[in-house]
Amino acid sequence: MPGAPPAPAPPSVLARSRALVRPALVDALGRLHPWTGEMAAYSLGWSDLSGTPDAGASEGKGLRQALAVLAAEACGAPGHSAVPGAVAVELVHAFSLLHDDIMDGDELRRRRPTVWKEYGTGPAVLAGDALLASAVQTLAEAPGGQAGAAVLRLSGTLADLVRGQSDDLLFADRPWTGTDSVGPGAYRSMAEHKTGSLLGCALALGALLGGAAGSTVASLDRAGRHLGVAFQAVDDLLGIWGDPAHTGKPVHGDLRQRKKTYPVLAALASTGPAARELLALLDAPCPPDGPTASRAAGLVETAGGRTATLAEARRHLDAARSCLHGLPLAPHAVREFQELLTYLAHRTV
Amino acid sequence: MPGAPPAPAPPSVLARSRALVRPALVDALGRLHPWTGEMAAYSLGWSDLSGTPDAGASEGKGLRQALAVLAAEACGAPGHSAVPGAVAVELVHAFSLLHDDIMDGDELRRRRPTVWKEYGTGPAVLAGDALLASAVQTLAEAPGGQAGAAVLRLSGTLADLVRGQSDDLLFADRPWTGTDSVGPGAYRSMAEHKTGSLLGCALALGALLGGAAGSTVASLDRAGRHLGVAFQAVDDLLGIWGDPAHTGKPVHGDLRQRKKTYPVLAALASTGPAARELLALLDAPCPPDGPTASRAAGLVETAGGRTATLAEARRHLDAARSCLHGLPLAPHAVREFQELLTYLAHRTV
Repeated sequence: MPGAPPAPAPPSVLARSRALVRPALVDALGRLHPWTGEMAAYSLGWSDLSGTPDAGASEGKGLRQALAVLAAEACGAPGHSAVPGAVAVELVHAFSLLHDDIMDGDELRRRRPTVWKEYGTGPAVLAGDALLASAVQTLAEAPGGQAGAAVLRLSGTLADLVRGQSDDLLFADRPWTGTDSVGPGAYRSMAEHKTGSLLGCALALGALLGGAAGSTVASLDRAGRHLGVAFQAVDDLLGIWGDPAHTGKPVHGDLRQRKKTYPVLAALASTGPAARELLALLDAPCPPDGPTASRAAGLVETAGGRTATLAEARRHLDAARSCLHGLPLAPHAVREFQELLTYLAHRTV
Repeated sequence: MPGAPPAPAPPSVLARSRALVRPALVDALGRLHPWTGEMAAYSLGWSDLSGTPDAGASEGKGLRQALAVLAAEACGAPGHSAVPGAVAVELVHAFSLLHDDIMDGDELRRRRPTVWKEYGTGPAVLAGDALLASAVQTLAEAPGGQAGAAVLRLSGTLADLVRGQSDDLLFADRPWTGTDSVGPGAYRSMAEHKTGSLLGCALALGALLGGAAGSTVASLDRAGRHLGVAFQAVDDLLGIWGDPAHTGKPVHGDLRQRKKTYPVLAALASTGPAARELLALLDAPCPPDGPTASRAAGLVETAGGRTATLAEARRHLDAARSCLHGLPLAPHAVREFQELLTYLAHRTV
């Protein structure tokens, strides 16, 4: 986690899964209308605006596809059996980023203009729809008799994603304190829907397509949900204290935008002068400028927000690990999963 | 069709199907986040902005749910076996209207402000996503062992819808004449994707959930696709010559917006002075005013655009009917389907 020792190198499962899944992902994009396919490839960091491959663009970690592949392997199936699930969760992730960027008005993602900023809002809505449709189609076409159950699982996650995004959008208009304020519990529930559900789905689909028993699928799903809550907590830490050189985001970015994130909510839930001063800064008529955001970051730390968020991340990483206890899983895959958890906990981007 | 004798009364299958499907549709909306549920209910014409039932609002014809119910009955199954499919196609229809209104910048639908106009673009994107997720979930949960096949069928239609909408958006920037212009054939393909695919899907899902053989499902699917192309042709006629008192749209609305519709494209595909004068009006720097749009409507008619569109509608209605020949279908359901075709061909709204 930020502030901890330097991040370890990305575990090899990320590159391995990317190589395994890429051909099917390329196929899925190739079936789209050329225009939405171009926008989809741009959103995935595969190409620039003219549609030509863009080696300089960042593609994202590919965490979800790796979770799907690892889950299948953990259940004793070859990694390739998870590929339709891996493609589906990567496409759903791309869909949600694309539409969330419209809703949040975000103009940059991975240091490039977002799709709506480059192509316009209407086309970006359509490109997101295309990605979502392609995800459902890919999974519905999965061989092996598990397609129906897999789509059912994915559809629950789609509902969760919308629910989490609804809460997240509505949080912006809620007060910092009082009975209508957003408590850490409500924030955790949002994070579980918005981030955890898709990580759980990735593991569940990998297991399901790998032929695992229902109880194993359910346990892996829970592990992914906890991982998602931990992932969001680390994200929130990076949003305040992350190094802009790594994150590509402005220093104290989430504080300047007065985003309701776990560290801030946990700090405000405390009592004491730091929480009171923080509240006054956040409740000011104008968004904080640089020095004010810096002061606010210090107050979040003093009021215990950073410590509480680190504890939140650790708690959910531990919970994710304990979901795996006693399951009949292949040890090498569990080891790779543990490496992935460690990497994600210490990531700086 | 417009210009033909007065429209017959709505066939009873529309009200019957609405009553049959409504409880499941209410359930589906009830499972959404309250905020997206409110937007979804507003978009369906069920409620006003405060979320209270709105008896004055128009709900739409409910054509898709009726097609699903009729298809199941035609295949000898009770209408209620089609309900998950009927719910899914109505939700997908609502999703596509909601997102298309954003992309097209349309501010009114059924005489009320569109969702994006009332709630904002971001929330409207989210409400559309919620409807789509709910459609997939409803179908994936369908009892009876056909859920997987049904979702596979729906997912192909989702891909078609995006493809059709992509073409439709891109048509706007293409020239009226020359090698890059939109011919009637390209327009028909767009209409089949954008309108026909979901009508075909409604029939196919009803048949599938009703236990029909694959060949019957495929024939009904084709019938629905033809019906959709005919439906779009009638829509295009109404967009130029429809009575604003019935359609709720401005007189000659499609011409004022210079929309590329079948009557205009067919007129331009002809030779002669009317087509040339029409082209000059459409290619003018500014959109046509009222008198100019009225003159353009006359030119479309003189150049044969109205006759060609009526012929296109009749051809595809006949093709839809002939798809049913020789199928082992229940006569009473086929009769109701024929009534529905006649009603749609003569509709004024």
